[in-house]
Amino acid sequence: MMTIRDVAREAGVSVATVSRVLNNSALVTADTRARVMKTIQRLDYRPDANAQALANRFSDTIGVVVMDVSDPFFGALVKAVDTVAQSLQKQVLIVNSWHRADKERHAIEVLIRQRCHALIVHAKALCDGELADLMQQVPGMVLVNRVVPGFAHRCVSLDNVSGALMAMRLLLQHGHQRIAYLGSIHPIEDNVQRRAGWYQALSEQGITPADGWCAEGEPDLQGGEQAMVELLGRNLQLTAVFAYNDSMAAGALAALKDNGIAVPQQLSLVGFDDIPFARYTDPQLSTVRYPIVSMAKLASELALKAAAGQINIHDHHCFMPTLVRRHSVAARQTVAAVTNTTDSPL
Amino acid sequence: MMTIRDVAREAGVSVATVSRVLNNSALVTADTRARVMKTIQRLDYRPDANAQALANRFSDTIGVVVMDVSDPFFGALVKAVDTVAQSLQKQVLIVNSWHRADKERHAIEVLIRQRCHALIVHAKALCDGELADLMQQVPGMVLVNRVVPGFAHRCVSLDNVSGALMAMRLLLQHGHQRIAYLGSIHPIEDNVQRRAGWYQALSEQGITPADGWCAEGEPDLQGGEQAMVELLGRNLQLTAVFAYNDSMAAGALAALKDNGIAVPQQLSLVGFDDIPFARYTDPQLSTVRYPIVSMAKLASELALKAAAGQINIHDHHCFMPTLVRRHSVAARQTVAAVTNTTDSPL
Repeated sequence: MMTIRDVAREAGVSVATVSRVLNNSALVTADTRARVMKTIQRLDYRPDANAQALANRFSDTIGVVVMDVSDPFFGALVKAVDTVAQSLQKQVLIVNSWHRADKERHAIEVLIRQRCHALIVHAKALCDGELADLMQQVPGMVLVNRVVPGFAHRCVSLDNVSGALMAMRLLLQHGHQRIAYLGSIHPIEDNVQRRAGWYQALSEQGITPADGWCAEGEPDLQGGEQAMVELLGRNLQLTAVFAYNDSMAAGALAALKDNGIAVPQQLSLVGFDDIPFARYTDPQLSTVRYPIVSMAKLASELALKAAAGQINIHDHHCFMPTLVRRHSVAARQTVAAVTNTTDSPL
Repeated sequence: MMTIRDVAREAGVSVATVSRVLNNSALVTADTRARVMKTIQRLDYRPDANAQALANRFSDTIGVVVMDVSDPFFGALVKAVDTVAQSLQKQVLIVNSWHRADKERHAIEVLIRQRCHALIVHAKALCDGELADLMQQVPGMVLVNRVVPGFAHRCVSLDNVSGALMAMRLLLQHGHQRIAYLGSIHPIEDNVQRRAGWYQALSEQGITPADGWCAEGEPDLQGGEQAMVELLGRNLQLTAVFAYNDSMAAGALAALKDNGIAVPQQLSLVGFDDIPFARYTDPQLSTVRYPIVSMAKLASELALKAAAGQINIHDHHCFMPTLVRRHSVAARQTVAAVTNTTDSPL
């Protein structure tokens, strides 16, 4: 039976250092941690019950950082983490970061201070370097919806470009060519990637969208409504819209209804995420399913494993979205492009 | 200039005890705390900057307990608390309690352990006695949407019965008599009170609703959809529905649409809460506005004041809802009651 002393001797460190690694102390350099973990794996050492209990004590609370829990997407993420936590009798602490770098930094620091050694973080404003530093300090920190170089094994991400291509190809297959993009006003990666997919799909068909084919808003109902109203005012003969997310698509639906434009008969619409509400719009939204529940579940499990030093550093965790065909897409009308029945032609 | 020694002498306690009261320590009995606070007020004693800083250190994090952040109502509550916290450079920690007494107890304990001396709690499963004990231990704990006897000054509540009466009178004024109630499956006070308002309004008109006029579901989109389907199957010649909340009402809308029943032409529908989404259903939902943002804002301010021992114990904080008339209510058809166009007559 291997003991902690064997590990220390083999790794060329003190017993206290091995203990620190096992307890996820921040007082160990990344190099030392890696060397000790490698030795532990090689010797197949299992810490005794006391050390285990200590490690558990430190990680009985899981921290979650999201932009805004009142956004249905983040609500679903938090709920999935909480489900995993409940099954393990662990508690979840949630902090909002409001799309801001200083808030993201502070939220992570607060949770570290609160002794959350398993952290699930959705951070888009902080740079890779700062996140890498934090992930080095906190072994149980896992990112959702982002990949930081060097930490891919602790990042759970989605292929946003492929998702956007799926949405766009659905619209193109239905004969649409003049397809707008309703984007988020926040300059986050997801928006950049979804917009890139939109552009690529059009380019593949030899279509070069004008700048006017994009409108931006807050990524919520009201933001989508306002952006759609702006788009309507530009008179661009668009026949379809791909929206950054379902909330914006639902807001756009309201604007289209107000302007007497029937979806999908006069204009087709595709969202992104497949939040629960997407099944309850009229018409039901065709959308790209973001498997956030599976991803958040995996992130929780990874964070707990990583906090306990039991993670495979060679794993990657990139999810692929799927297309959900409901009732907001139809074939492009063969006659003239949509004409608005009010005084704001599309 | 009064000192902490003057307060201690006047109150007949040690200086350490006065300090504990000022720092909101749990190691002071309620009687002692009350005596010290009274003395502080009488002598107009103001703690010095050091004591103040210490008190601030303890309350730089605000804890929030809600049932489920992914519910738009709780999302709005949390967002409002966070707005107050941000304006004061404080951090918010959020915990879900999932409609369960053990989770509510545990969530509150976790936040106390995390040194949140200002706590905003939405608890419906714990009994008054247990909440009173906790409120006695934690001076900065404030309840939202509940009144615990003896702690009314630290409870922010809504008059649910009046809200239900408003919704029902709107329907009655439009000629409806056979009005169903779509309730929550969780046996919480709000549901009991809204149902009581529904019953009272009908009784005032000499109408005694049959048991079959009530259907229950989870208080979300899917729960509302399922409960509405159940109601449709009972063939009750109902012409209107009052729903426990907007999510259920939106779910009911989907069920009605699937069954070819036009809202409001064939059936009128009123929700409760006025979540952002209520403006984006088709038709837009008439509903009872729950001023959760104002209430959560007040609760946050009260919790911070209470944590600092600066609360008026004679205040009460009961809010009144308001009626929001949108497009889901119309006059009852004078001809026959609604007949479903499919094989499940209403």
